[in-house]
Amino acid sequence: MNRILILALVLIGGLAAGAQTRVAPASLIAVAGQATANSHAYEYLEELCDGIGGRVTGSPEEQRARQWAVNKMKAIGLQNVHEERWQMARGWRRISAQAEMRSPSHQYLTVASLGWAGSTRDGGEEAEAVAVNRNELVEEQKHAAQWRGKILFLVSKGKPRPSFEIYALMGPFFQSAHDAGAVAVIDGDGTTETQGMNLTHIDPADFAGGYYEIPVVRMAADHRAILERLLDRKQTLRVWIEVRNSASGPVDSANVVGEIPGSQHPDEIVVLGAHLDSWDLGQGATDDGFGSVAVLAAAEAIAHSGFRPIRTIRFVLFTGEEQGVKGSLAYMKAHQKEIPNHVAAVVADMGDGPPTGFWLNGRDDLIALIEEVSSAAGSGGRLRITDATYTFSDAFTFTLAGVPGIDLAQDSADYRYTHHSTVDTFDKVKPENLVRSAAAIAVLGYWIADREQRLAVPLTRERTGQLLTKMKLNDALRLIGLGPLGAE
Amino acid sequence: MNRILILALVLIGGLAAGAQTRVAPASLIAVAGQATANSHAYEYLEELCDGIGGRVTGSPEEQRARQWAVNKMKAIGLQNVHEERWQMARGWRRISAQAEMRSPSHQYLTVASLGWAGSTRDGGEEAEAVAVNRNELVEEQKHAAQWRGKILFLVSKGKPRPSFEIYALMGPFFQSAHDAGAVAVIDGDGTTETQGMNLTHIDPADFAGGYYEIPVVRMAADHRAILERLLDRKQTLRVWIEVRNSASGPVDSANVVGEIPGSQHPDEIVVLGAHLDSWDLGQGATDDGFGSVAVLAAAEAIAHSGFRPIRTIRFVLFTGEEQGVKGSLAYMKAHQKEIPNHVAAVVADMGDGPPTGFWLNGRDDLIALIEEVSSAAGSGGRLRITDATYTFSDAFTFTLAGVPGIDLAQDSADYRYTHHSTVDTFDKVKPENLVRSAAAIAVLGYWIADREQRLAVPLTRERTGQLLTKMKLNDALRLIGLGPLGAE
Repeated sequence: MNRILILALVLIGGLAAGAQTRVAPASLIAVAGQATANSHAYEYLEELCDGIGGRVTGSPEEQRARQWAVNKMKAIGLQNVHEERWQMARGWRRISAQAEMRSPSHQYLTVASLGWAGSTRDGGEEAEAVAVNRNELVEEQKHAAQWRGKILFLVSKGKPRPSFEIYALMGPFFQSAHDAGAVAVIDGDGTTETQGMNLTHIDPADFAGGYYEIPVVRMAADHRAILERLLDRKQTLRVWIEVRNSASGPVDSANVVGEIPGSQHPDEIVVLGAHLDSWDLGQGATDDGFGSVAVLAAAEAIAHSGFRPIRTIRFVLFTGEEQGVKGSLAYMKAHQKEIPNHVAAVVADMGDGPPTGFWLNGRDDLIALIEEVSSAAGSGGRLRITDATYTFSDAFTFTLAGVPGIDLAQDSADYRYTHHSTVDTFDKVKPENLVRSAAAIAVLGYWIADREQRLAVPLTRERTGQLLTKMKLNDALRLIGLGPLGAE
Repeated sequence: MNRILILALVLIGGLAAGAQTRVAPASLIAVAGQATANSHAYEYLEELCDGIGGRVTGSPEEQRARQWAVNKMKAIGLQNVHEERWQMARGWRRISAQAEMRSPSHQYLTVASLGWAGSTRDGGEEAEAVAVNRNELVEEQKHAAQWRGKILFLVSKGKPRPSFEIYALMGPFFQSAHDAGAVAVIDGDGTTETQGMNLTHIDPADFAGGYYEIPVVRMAADHRAILERLLDRKQTLRVWIEVRNSASGPVDSANVVGEIPGSQHPDEIVVLGAHLDSWDLGQGATDDGFGSVAVLAAAEAIAHSGFRPIRTIRFVLFTGEEQGVKGSLAYMKAHQKEIPNHVAAVVADMGDGPPTGFWLNGRDDLIALIEEVSSAAGSGGRLRITDATYTFSDAFTFTLAGVPGIDLAQDSADYRYTHHSTVDTFDKVKPENLVRSAAAIAVLGYWIADREQRLAVPLTRERTGQLLTKMKLNDALRLIGLGPLGAE
């Protein structure tokens, strides 16, 4: 233990420099020391990425990942390790997607299907591609009769609409495109423009994880630019597209849960979480294998620290995050009566960069408190505590339930390229960022669970509503069918 | 004319600043003025890229591009516009290529077929992927009996071999892999490593443009890295691969030729060239739509300058460059008797960056001469004249024939990503780089064609051999079946 303590003191040098008036308790030093000097996080990530790969909710890979996580939690020595089952209305699996512009010139088009979207007929279909303005979806749907036999190519013209609004209108648009007999929809390359890189960024068809019969594909920006130039010049485009997905009936999924029971208040719970599911083009390394492994490594660091917090720390690896935080919503439903016992939830889901701080999702009342631990958690760099909002991670589900939902902030420079894309692979992750992130959530989680005073009690639904109004999120959330959750 | 002359003087300001002791003749100023202030190059490139697209030698698109180039040359006012037919032993067309790692984990693999490589059976094949060391191809082939039913995954272990040597051994390796009953070969992502970008860089199966029955694919670096990690850990890999290409018997191609006849020595010829063919994943914008359009724009600038050079300038858009400078080799064969009349060939094939100079491919005897015109050709920036070698462009075919083969050097920072890849699209090209490159070759070409003294006479075969020895290229060239060409 002594050797580790010394190592920890060296490694978290920021502690002494950054907070001269504070002395970190021996427990936090031990946790940080275990997390930094005795980490197996990078090995775990390699197992998860190379051994299992992409983990779409409800898929065999996701099931394998859950079993792996259960085994890992048990090996680490967590208590009460179990899966908490929940169900999705449909399972979905990608097979292939191909497209070509056939006229006025030939171009192979890089495309990938949205999750929970449909297929073309086998062998594909050639059709005219026509522009549909995503900023006028309601207006455009009035002309849906003209969509029969057409491929709808989404473009942005005129005044951009708020993204939440477009997101909420996308489902009804897919439905009416299908009803009108459109062949397929071609969307942008995702949340990120990646000109010059052959990437597509996958998402679910809509936030609620609904299934739509119509094929919907994302297209590499360079190829979309060709189509846009030609459409702008009033050229008639003929595009061939073949999309093959496999959809099924209801499938089971589960959140994976393990605990370090509290020594004095075992009924009070601090959640450390991340999402185990991922998209399937890559390996889900930066989104969110990184966070999942950081949570397991934090659990290991705390379990092996020789200290035990006074409250329970519950480690939860959610599934269904990519389909609209479905796993954490299921968790909230299953644990509804237990919500008053939840003290806070700390979630790691901002990619693969080094930790830079914590975002408290509107809870400015907690900034000063959490700043107390920020230098100890920083393991070499001071962390910045803000009330910034990260929509969405599973932390936000806790915020909606009145429980402080805290996101680990990271400086993930390349995340916009990697996440949801084919290059989200193991080699993108630097071990030092993973180790430092695990240390940060381990120290914060332990500190919240072990401080004498409870960090916070859950807000009422009414006060949560006020918080969301302050965050200017109420309208946006209503559009996607979300609002305050809670125990009442 | 006056207005253009004034504009030209303003635009090529570098002239006055860079060469105070020299005054550019009115003809060069007029040529540079036309090339810079009256350019249609960018429109032409848009027509070629968006209107026709990728132009694989022998394909319908390449044929369309030739017809387009003939029409363009005629519209510009060139003389003796015609196609010079040559034949390839086989035509080839890409249909699709898909692969997945099936075990030990699942991963969609981004792959693209090499040109003039074969297909798998329809529906693909699942097989074990085994490593083959590209640095020991001869040694590896001794164990070819073990390749039956396997997918061969090329890796680099131990001492790297010279690239020419590997290149030369690749064809026999493909042949023996096929004979041994291997399912397919997975190669690297091409000449460029593009980690984090979902790119594959296509090439012909070998330098001579031979056809091999076995499927050979390039794979995105990120996905190849997964396979390499697993193979390094002695894991057994199962990979599914489906490659569909279409190969045919002999196909016709042609170089497109047009001239501005010399006023005094019409039999003496200065060639300005580029290659019209391209790979097919993208639009062949930076390789070598850029060069092709620069040549057309140079032709237009000279034709419309109001001046006429004393020697003939022959504008040649070669095909078959991507299959091993087959078009320029065919040109050399067809014009063998005319070689003594060739003064020089200037080729633009270094991507889409701004011009930085000219590479003389070993001809240090010409550096001082060509420096005379370098500030006039720079149109705003001084060009650097060196005897550096660019292997290979069509200029090098002229070098092999004893004729000074001169390459336009360009600072093409992103070319390593774009060339031979799916993102080689029109939007990558900046008009100013295209215009300046066209001006540079127009001015140099005109100057060579119009100077009183002939720039050079072709070297004998023997002296060309000495030049190649000096360039340390003799052995390398012999490996791929090339050596001094010539009229003797």
